[in-house]
Amino acid sequence: MSRALSYRLARLASTVGISAVLVGCGTDAGGGGAASGDIAALMKARNLTEADVAAALKTYTPTGKHDEYYTFASGGHSGNLIVIGVPSMRIHKYVAVFTPEPWQGFSYGDQSTQVLDAGARDGRRITWADMHHPALSETAGDYDGKFIFVNDKANPRIAVVDLHDFVTKQIVGSELIETDHGAAFVTPNTEYVIESSQYPAPLGGRYAPIETYDDEYRGAVILWKFDRERGRIDVAKSFAIELPPYMQDLADAGKKATDGYLFINSFNTERATGGTAEGRPPMEAGASQNDMDYMHIIDWRKAETLANAGRTETIADMRVIRLDTAIDEGLLHFVPEPKSPHGVDITPDGKEIVVGGKLDTHATVYSWEKMKALIDAKDFAGKDAYGVPILDFEKSIRGQCEIGLGPLHTQFDDKGFAYTSVFIESTVAKWSLKDLKVVNKVDVHYNIGHLVAAEGDTVSPDGKYLIAMNKWAIDRFAKVGPLLPQNFQLVDLSGEEMRLLYDMPLPLGEPHYAQMIKADKLEPIDVYSPIGIDPYTMKVDPNSVAAGKERIERKADGVHVYMTAVRSHFTPDIVRVQQGDQVHLHVTNVEQAHDATHGICIGSYNINVSLEPGKHTNVSFKADTSGVYPFYCTEFCSALHLEMAGYFLVEPKGD
Amino acid sequence: MSRALSYRLARLASTVGISAVLVGCGTDAGGGGAASGDIAALMKARNLTEADVAAALKTYTPTGKHDEYYTFASGGHSGNLIVIGVPSMRIHKYVAVFTPEPWQGFSYGDQSTQVLDAGARDGRRITWADMHHPALSETAGDYDGKFIFVNDKANPRIAVVDLHDFVTKQIVGSELIETDHGAAFVTPNTEYVIESSQYPAPLGGRYAPIETYDDEYRGAVILWKFDRERGRIDVAKSFAIELPPYMQDLADAGKKATDGYLFINSFNTERATGGTAEGRPPMEAGASQNDMDYMHIIDWRKAETLANAGRTETIADMRVIRLDTAIDEGLLHFVPEPKSPHGVDITPDGKEIVVGGKLDTHATVYSWEKMKALIDAKDFAGKDAYGVPILDFEKSIRGQCEIGLGPLHTQFDDKGFAYTSVFIESTVAKWSLKDLKVVNKVDVHYNIGHLVAAEGDTVSPDGKYLIAMNKWAIDRFAKVGPLLPQNFQLVDLSGEEMRLLYDMPLPLGEPHYAQMIKADKLEPIDVYSPIGIDPYTMKVDPNSVAAGKERIERKADGVHVYMTAVRSHFTPDIVRVQQGDQVHLHVTNVEQAHDATHGICIGSYNINVSLEPGKHTNVSFKADTSGVYPFYCTEFCSALHLEMAGYFLVEPKGD
Repeated sequence: MSRALSYRLARLASTVGISAVLVGCGTDAGGGGAASGDIAALMKARNLTEADVAAALKTYTPTGKHDEYYTFASGGHSGNLIVIGVPSMRIHKYVAVFTPEPWQGFSYGDQSTQVLDAGARDGRRITWADMHHPALSETAGDYDGKFIFVNDKANPRIAVVDLHDFVTKQIVGSELIETDHGAAFVTPNTEYVIESSQYPAPLGGRYAPIETYDDEYRGAVILWKFDRERGRIDVAKSFAIELPPYMQDLADAGKKATDGYLFINSFNTERATGGTAEGRPPMEAGASQNDMDYMHIIDWRKAETLANAGRTETIADMRVIRLDTAIDEGLLHFVPEPKSPHGVDITPDGKEIVVGGKLDTHATVYSWEKMKALIDAKDFAGKDAYGVPILDFEKSIRGQCEIGLGPLHTQFDDKGFAYTSVFIESTVAKWSLKDLKVVNKVDVHYNIGHLVAAEGDTVSPDGKYLIAMNKWAIDRFAKVGPLLPQNFQLVDLSGEEMRLLYDMPLPLGEPHYAQMIKADKLEPIDVYSPIGIDPYTMKVDPNSVAAGKERIERKADGVHVYMTAVRSHFTPDIVRVQQGDQVHLHVTNVEQAHDATHGICIGSYNINVSLEPGKHTNVSFKADTSGVYPFYCTEFCSALHLEMAGYFLVEPKGD
Repeated sequence: MSRALSYRLARLASTVGISAVLVGCGTDAGGGGAASGDIAALMKARNLTEADVAAALKTYTPTGKHDEYYTFASGGHSGNLIVIGVPSMRIHKYVAVFTPEPWQGFSYGDQSTQVLDAGARDGRRITWADMHHPALSETAGDYDGKFIFVNDKANPRIAVVDLHDFVTKQIVGSELIETDHGAAFVTPNTEYVIESSQYPAPLGGRYAPIETYDDEYRGAVILWKFDRERGRIDVAKSFAIELPPYMQDLADAGKKATDGYLFINSFNTERATGGTAEGRPPMEAGASQNDMDYMHIIDWRKAETLANAGRTETIADMRVIRLDTAIDEGLLHFVPEPKSPHGVDITPDGKEIVVGGKLDTHATVYSWEKMKALIDAKDFAGKDAYGVPILDFEKSIRGQCEIGLGPLHTQFDDKGFAYTSVFIESTVAKWSLKDLKVVNKVDVHYNIGHLVAAEGDTVSPDGKYLIAMNKWAIDRFAKVGPLLPQNFQLVDLSGEEMRLLYDMPLPLGEPHYAQMIKADKLEPIDVYSPIGIDPYTMKVDPNSVAAGKERIERKADGVHVYMTAVRSHFTPDIVRVQQGDQVHLHVTNVEQAHDATHGICIGSYNINVSLEPGKHTNVSFKADTSGVYPFYCTEFCSALHLEMAGYFLVEPKGD
């Protein structure tokens, strides 16, 4: 463009209220910021399209401005919870849940180690997890921003994370089952956290040969009772329901019209067990023979009544409603689902259930009104091999939407549209719930698994944003070796057409599901107050230390070091013990300034804990090696942070 | 703006080659993407300034486009290495280095566990680290993109990460010292990786009372010999030099004019030991008394000659040049530095050394020409308490630049400017190396520690980008509880004025230093080839398994399972062992498709490993608990990924 035209355009722009900067045509593409950073030149310099410019402006979040939504994504096999800001797609925090994490001191101090150790299986400490599905606590079917629950598929466990301080407060697990997948999901008022098994096994950890699969292997669903007052799962009030040895898959809790019911998909109703080295087909083939598998419909209020009435057997310390009882009492029904279904999602009004079939091309929409009528009338099409009554498929559905190859999961917006991830096609399909027709699709990159829309699985979805959670990235990002990130793609739902806004690499673990909540629903605390709080009780720890009360005391159970941390020193900063002493460090950060976090580590003793303002931590260990061990503050706190250090002196035992 | 003006502006824009989209004034702010996403409306809707728009366009990186630079940042006390794309500031990968990480299977399989276990101290397995300073391998003082070295301050160790596959290949450590800080830094051709101690202690892990500090406590610098051919540190060819009990701090290796020398800062030449509970001042006060501390100047080629000539004593298996020898042979000199210095950085031409003083307001610029002349002439101003010759301060410097309160670290650009982080002010100061005057400053948020410019510590810095590595975030991001992220702020260096471009929360650990390298210098591999590669030898593993050769063999040392993984099954998929058996899983991913990664976990046995295409992994464990344990693929690989599962059956021991 000529200088003259450029000048005219700029002058015109200024007369209409848009700065010349925005329409100017300077040639200094790399210029120093806004003053010379005109758009055309920047577009040319960075090869941006018009759509890119719009996407940039819809996602860029300037310094000090906060994101509109939090997305909580599972960390997959990294075992942590990922907190992502939307629309900027910046990771705000990894919350340590099932995997020890030294920055947070998770499982490096006494209290957090107890939390992790409660998840031991077969007496074995488990230091990782395969986290799949986070579930925000709900009130009346809507996120309330107080807690989030997450599962471990590999070592079936549920964790409770408190969103006041973003700390994992509890891990529970049952040796009733060996894996889970339909977890975590909550009932509409978070009465229960649901965990259903995936790969059948003899209940309670027994051994039984694989040849006895049909008779000895079983699935189960555990209903973990949540005590909102205490913010903890009440294990004693929790119970389970035995299920046939199909592979129970995704699950969802009914809401509004469907409140009181659980819906759990299943595949491998063929009961294939694999046997690739024994002349049998692999599971992938064996489990894909039947045209229909079974959605499980469970009346959890009836189950709760039965459990409270003692109609259970105890297996591996868990009260279990046996399969026969569940059938006899009419709390379990099946309805057929097309070929190897995966996602099961309740519509916002609670009236319909949408199922995506991995090997089917449809989203099937079930009518709860129809299903409920069939159940109430005991109008069954048959029974499965274990006696569970089966509803008629055609009588149970409203219809099907032809989606494409490999529909998986569905989320909803505020305008009556559903959004389904389509794995094989690598697309997201937007379709009308009203007429079951696809409106349009957007390509994603690549191999989308779950997807999440803003509050898109609640009774009041927001629309606006959707994230495609793609399993493969391939060529999307600069290379980082053979192990690639996943790719979260932010999609703009505000218009008729969906638009890709942003590609975000996932640098650690493989997230499966996520939930997206309006940021203003959360009220996180800034500091622990009053000083001396144990985050695991939220009370002042009995061993907390006030400034001026620091001391070292030798007691029957070892040496107790009562220490404070403040910018920029520990008191005491010289600790003398004898080799072989049991040492109990009690450390309080006596500060209340926001972000004035300290840490304390002891070299060579594998100790590091985080001390946020007001927090108290206990660390117990045996001083079994003599020597001179510096300790120091591990969280940069001040100009003299490096000087915030001391010596832990372990005098050798006399021989 | 009126519709008429809007129309005129749009029409004019189109005549000069800018789309109407970019200057149009539609009112549909939230519209569906570019077609209606006009800039003014988007700016209004998201409250963006003109500077924000420029910043957005300078950082936004559309799908499929790759970042121009990689930044490798230390993960602080999370113990991993963070790979960040610039200018998008997206985290591409966390590389597990010192902390077990299940997604990567790091320290969950035999080979990677051996790597981590090599870093044990006092026979104790260390599962975390306080990583401070990454160092890219260099050729002629420039990054060559082949390796990166990182340190652990808390349990002094060095790790070698191979940038072909982004995998930690080696961890070495010496019990000569108890902490490090001046690590890792490399000599200009990566002959040595440098690790100098921070908090003095008796060398070799001995105990000595703190009262004997002056006589018994020492610092040291270790020169780890790097064997580029093997891609490993050669421990036997490495050696150390004993240093006085000051707190050695940051370090840098000379280049070009200064090639052959190491420069190490120190503080606490007061030799304060703290004693807050014993009536003495805390270290922060005790260590801040002297007006000057000492920069250590070490002639490493002379030291290498001495070490090779056997002029060493062996302490904790490390060859050590004793302090007296170092003094006698003239390989160690001091030059005073103003009050508690922190950063020491060599200029790109290698001729000058810039030191920032935490408690000083200057960047002091030392002239190597002057210092070298003083050393050669043995023109000393005195000796320290240990006999180390001290150069005269005034005779050694070219001058000082008045920077501001709390200057720390300095990086360089391609135009003769230096950039210094100013902690107390929370600014970055741009100053002229030529006339030692500050040109301008930019505010950062908050409490900046290190900073990194594009190739900004090499012989040929690029300018363009700088990242301010801020320690505190306070109000910058949506709240995530009392433990806050750090804040990396990307700064545009392309203009005369520095401009903030982007705020990036650091969600895990506290990065200290980082290095930024042009992305096209790296050549990462896509898959391991040929099939069966052990990443720790980069050779085909003797236990690797070809398709069709899968088998289970009972041998004297246990049950060997030779297994393959391919979409979407394992062979064998049923594994039967007896309780008490030692099990050796040998698993090969026989695929060569990019991104076709599998994983394998065994529930309740705390096992999960990653199997990138072509990779082979061995996992040994004792099947000490009987039961039925599903195993499955933990990395989503295909539509039938959930069916990629099998059973690990442990038959109970007969009594």
